[in-house]
Amino acid sequence: MGLILSILLCQFTMAQSNATRIRHMVVFKLKHPGGSAEEQNFLNAIRKLAAIPGVEKFECMKQISKKNKYDFGLSMEFADQQAYDKYNNHPDHIAFVQNRWLKEVDDFLEIDFKLLE
Amino acid sequence: MGLILSILLCQFTMAQSNATRIRHMVVFKLKHPGGSAEEQNFLNAIRKLAAIPGVEKFECMKQISKKNKYDFGLSMEFADQQAYDKYNNHPDHIAFVQNRWLKEVDDFLEIDFKLLE
Repeated sequence: MGLILSILLCQFTMAQSNATRIRHMVVFKLKHPGGSAEEQNFLNAIRKLAAIPGVEKFECMKQISKKNKYDFGLSMEFADQQAYDKYNNHPDHIAFVQNRWLKEVDDFLEIDFKLLE
Repeated sequence: MGLILSILLCQFTMAQSNATRIRHMVVFKLKHPGGSAEEQNFLNAIRKLAAIPGVEKFECMKQISKKNKYDFGLSMEFADQQAYDKYNNHPDHIAFVQNRWLKEVDDFLEIDFKLLE
């Protein structure tokens, strides 16, 4: 009975978690020339956002389609809106936006997803 | 020696696989009203693209950010450019684009990613 209860609770938690889960993405292009030290420095800095509590499945990617104007992408997941809000309001995130993002990013698009069943 | 060779080969294959892997995404909005039967019919049809050979990690998602104009997103992965090209040229994909996508999609943006190490 204990095992069955555990399995049921686990499935309930997973179902609940997926229902509230948010995948946050941003595609962007930098002011820096492609392949420059400044570009690499920015990409190294942006990866540190992964350490902010609540951030899951952090990915930093190269955007390679010629059908849009962006060169890079970030993807991360949050368990729910509360975790996403905490990330947005975290001092490390706010400092990154103020000190790096607003100064070095030329253009960007934010995209947030919920998985459809 | 057999085991070690197998492990090394597996690691090589995985490394190679990640280096060539492409995540293809598209965000889009439909001409149909939100919550309509036509919208649901389109979403049911688009999910069938998952059955085309080479398509991995297929996801159909609701786009929820108010910072862009799109309502839905698709994400899928291909082992390499050859698998991606095969999908693009597959008769089921071409038929879907001709018969559904071009007629029912109001606006969209395609994004392709390679994971940065």
